[in-house]
Amino acid sequence: MLAALGIQRVTVYKKPIIGIISTGDEIVPVGEVPGPGRIRDINTYTLSGLIQESGATTEQFGIVHDDYKALLAKSSRALNQCDMVLVSGGSSVGARDFTIDVISAMQAAAILFHGISISPGKPTILARIKNKAFWGLPGHVVSAMIVFSRIVKPFIEHISGYRAPEKDLRLTARLSRNLASAQGRVDYIRVRLYHKEGILWAEPILGKSGLINTMVKADGLIEIGMNTEGLEKGAEVEVIAL
Amino acid sequence: MLAALGIQRVTVYKKPIIGIISTGDEIVPVGEVPGPGRIRDINTYTLSGLIQESGATTEQFGIVHDDYKALLAKSSRALNQCDMVLVSGGSSVGARDFTIDVISAMQAAAILFHGISISPGKPTILARIKNKAFWGLPGHVVSAMIVFSRIVKPFIEHISGYRAPEKDLRLTARLSRNLASAQGRVDYIRVRLYHKEGILWAEPILGKSGLINTMVKADGLIEIGMNTEGLEKGAEVEVIAL
Repeated sequence: MLAALGIQRVTVYKKPIIGIISTGDEIVPVGEVPGPGRIRDINTYTLSGLIQESGATTEQFGIVHDDYKALLAKSSRALNQCDMVLVSGGSSVGARDFTIDVISAMQAAAILFHGISISPGKPTILARIKNKAFWGLPGHVVSAMIVFSRIVKPFIEHISGYRAPEKDLRLTARLSRNLASAQGRVDYIRVRLYHKEGILWAEPILGKSGLINTMVKADGLIEIGMNTEGLEKGAEVEVIAL
Repeated sequence: MLAALGIQRVTVYKKPIIGIISTGDEIVPVGEVPGPGRIRDINTYTLSGLIQESGATTEQFGIVHDDYKALLAKSSRALNQCDMVLVSGGSSVGARDFTIDVISAMQAAAILFHGISISPGKPTILARIKNKAFWGLPGHVVSAMIVFSRIVKPFIEHISGYRAPEKDLRLTARLSRNLASAQGRVDYIRVRLYHKEGILWAEPILGKSGLINTMVKADGLIEIGMNTEGLEKGAEVEVIAL
């Protein structure tokens, strides 16, 4: 349309640059063989992919051990270089979770929330530091991905200038088995879709939130609301495409 | 998943480079004011956008007038530099349509088809030149876009290594008015979607195939099969998302 009208220049929003930091003593670089109790750094790559799909660009800051000073230094550098920062891991309240301490130590920092009523994804932090968003995401890869898709992504779309963000693609399917759910929080259940006798079925994929293969298998998520105790086999559900 | 398994290198298909040539005495560059009977070069930009959405990269070769020698020279250069070439305009059978002549003049060239039973989009050419695909697309922007989405895009996905191409996203809607259609060809009708009283309606957007604004307004296409004479208001239709 712009070409037809001869408009060769338009003002656009700059693509935001999103910094990614992966923290945890248990994280080793992808090129290393993880010893007992260690795991390769998956989050840097899954988050980079999701950020690029959201239309933003990424800058990777690598792995930081559970070390307050190191995390503070790396976080300050990332905030200087980027428009927004994601730290995966260290967002909970344990003795080795330093994200909150790091935020508190920064100038002009305000913690907007710490902990949200969703599962997986509870230990999520959002802080405003000067005029930038600084996120603490859960370290488990499935939790980090779900928090990203449901919460961080609309935020990136907003700072990218979308004023009417794309709605999620949702498909209606029937649940293949009973599903329990705790009240008082929103549950996101990974599901695989399949057709059988003309009906689209959603089959829950169970597995711990550290298992990336469950996300590889999943086609989408079911959202079970705060006031729902569970869903019965055969119930009509909306599946949010992943 | 690859990060989790420590696989740092995988063999992938190279992104194909698709050359674009826009032909026609009536076409002027976007920066010029078109005189009577002239039009700005829209196709270079719409096709570039569609190609990039398909996961390929583009190389733009600009505008060629209705001149056999100039088109032959530019086409040879594009074929040397690219994995596939699209020429928009000049694909019909008029005195000023040189694409077929250019193909016939090239070594190791075979015309696979010239003319297809779809509307809009009839004057479409596919030739194999050595081991590359060379396409003649209609000059009207809507025709070129529809031929691209329905025919060229799956071809690009194939040479990009997709063996199970993404299926089109299709939504079920009801037609807002009667629609006539000629037998013996597949018709693609541009439609706008809207919700009214809980029903998703598809409203045909009528307009000549040179009008880019009809594609800007359209959310998708309805495909009316060869053996269908038309559709009635209220009929259930599948809308292929654009």
